[in-house]
Amino acid sequence: MENDLLRWFRETLPAHPRILLGPGDDAAILRLADEANLVATTDMLMDGVDFLLAEHEPERIGRKALAVNLSDLAAMAAQPVAALVSLALPQRGGVALAQRLYAGLTTLAAKHDCPIAGGDTNSWEGPLVISITALGEVPPERRWRRSGAQPGDALLVTGSLGGSILSRQFDFEPRVREALWLADHAMVHAAIDISDGLALDLWRLLEASGCGAIVEESSVPIASAAEELARRDGRPPLDHALCDGEDFELLLAVPPDEAERLLADQPLGVPLIRIGLCTDEGLWLRAPEGELSPLAPHGFQHRLDP
Amino acid sequence: MENDLLRWFRETLPAHPRILLGPGDDAAILRLADEANLVATTDMLMDGVDFLLAEHEPERIGRKALAVNLSDLAAMAAQPVAALVSLALPQRGGVALAQRLYAGLTTLAAKHDCPIAGGDTNSWEGPLVISITALGEVPPERRWRRSGAQPGDALLVTGSLGGSILSRQFDFEPRVREALWLADHAMVHAAIDISDGLALDLWRLLEASGCGAIVEESSVPIASAAEELARRDGRPPLDHALCDGEDFELLLAVPPDEAERLLADQPLGVPLIRIGLCTDEGLWLRAPEGELSPLAPHGFQHRLDP
Repeated sequence: MENDLLRWFRETLPAHPRILLGPGDDAAILRLADEANLVATTDMLMDGVDFLLAEHEPERIGRKALAVNLSDLAAMAAQPVAALVSLALPQRGGVALAQRLYAGLTTLAAKHDCPIAGGDTNSWEGPLVISITALGEVPPERRWRRSGAQPGDALLVTGSLGGSILSRQFDFEPRVREALWLADHAMVHAAIDISDGLALDLWRLLEASGCGAIVEESSVPIASAAEELARRDGRPPLDHALCDGEDFELLLAVPPDEAERLLADQPLGVPLIRIGLCTDEGLWLRAPEGELSPLAPHGFQHRLDP
Repeated sequence: MENDLLRWFRETLPAHPRILLGPGDDAAILRLADEANLVATTDMLMDGVDFLLAEHEPERIGRKALAVNLSDLAAMAAQPVAALVSLALPQRGGVALAQRLYAGLTTLAAKHDCPIAGGDTNSWEGPLVISITALGEVPPERRWRRSGAQPGDALLVTGSLGGSILSRQFDFEPRVREALWLADHAMVHAAIDISDGLALDLWRLLEASGCGAIVEESSVPIASAAEELARRDGRPPLDHALCDGEDFELLLAVPPDEAERLLADQPLGVPLIRIGLCTDEGLWLRAPEGELSPLAPHGFQHRLDP
């Protein structure tokens, strides 16, 4: 199998000027831009947890496995450099499955100029596991972190939130281009990608920054999928927008003047929405009438018995 | 769990000057040496395939998962920069298991100055999976590849071969320091780490280089574990040395003069042995009496039904 897939890799995966040595050697060798810092992130997706191989098309699964990693690069405003793909494939039909996974992920990789530099392809009796490491680069002076938010900053999000489980969990667009544009053209104090729900990821950003926030209930952009899900399960659409996972939109803390300009210009193609502001402490939701209530950092978290 | 482990990571994993931003953000940010090229490799280990969680201590499993990656960096003579660790943990006892895996791998990481820069920790109903990506750096002029062997080159190996399944598959020492010393002090035309057996990995090096080789039967360094295994299974010790996987020694193609010098000096601490020489084509085993027989590239390969 290794040889079949290696041959297929060599024939299929396009060469890229950043990859000095690619799939088929012991390791990949990559050229970064002069003085760039390296950004590295990894995510593992498992059948039965992050997708259902019996239900979801392998192309969408492969795409998602790369997309979640690209979203992490976007949260640091990093230019993708390359990705490494490790697979634990079921014995039966593994080669065909690998090819369909790759079909999905290489399409997304090409769109974001993120060549596949290598990986490790295995088979076993267990369920499908995909582990991808994405590598990116940032100029040393670029400092998008979770930790830079300041009281008074406006909180902005891209796109709309909630209900991703209905389909967007596979088809979301990692906000790589939007992040790179913002990093080049605007001042961003702190950033995170919303992977586990707005409330939880906002809480993480605030924890890292040592400040608080008020979220304006009426400003949270509710995705139509969140409305649809609310009709099905009877929970308020706002709950879904605040607490559903896998939106993979950007959450940004931006100085107020900069926020005004960006909100007026809407330079990204995707909507940029102000959902609230950073304060000294606490995490609050403000109702349209002005009443404040605590916003609990609920969202998606893997559970594990200690 | 994420929070438990993140807290534990922050408290346990030492800071490192190369890691500008480490575990706990969306991605790690790493500083490479000026002008260095990035080397990236990834390996996934699975319960029931690469180890047996019911039999092997988690510390040894964690160590191995990092060691196989460091061995790939050694094959490129790359200085380790950092590693990323992804885990799919069984639900029950997952946190304790993660801590024992980390205990094994961080000890090895410290020895090779390879800090853990991040990862992804998950739990599921399936068996344990560990996927590690190791990042390294090489000066742009350093060109250890599989592909540079030339007819006339001496073939050298470090250490001794075969029988690793008895214990060394977990306890082998990745030849990082040896590779870095050789890269700084000697001319090496081609290199590979022997992960799937000497015969198969030599064949890979020859394929990449477009040449052949003769292996001297009497020169192959047979590990005592290969002798032990031979006593148990009745196969010749040489077979084990040629075809067993997981030795993780270095195989090098070196110009003959350079080889003479290295063999006389033995500068590595671990023995450096000449096992044969590169020729124009074919892969041959030479008996002590001089007779040549074809050496089949048999070794360990994952099997997968297409």
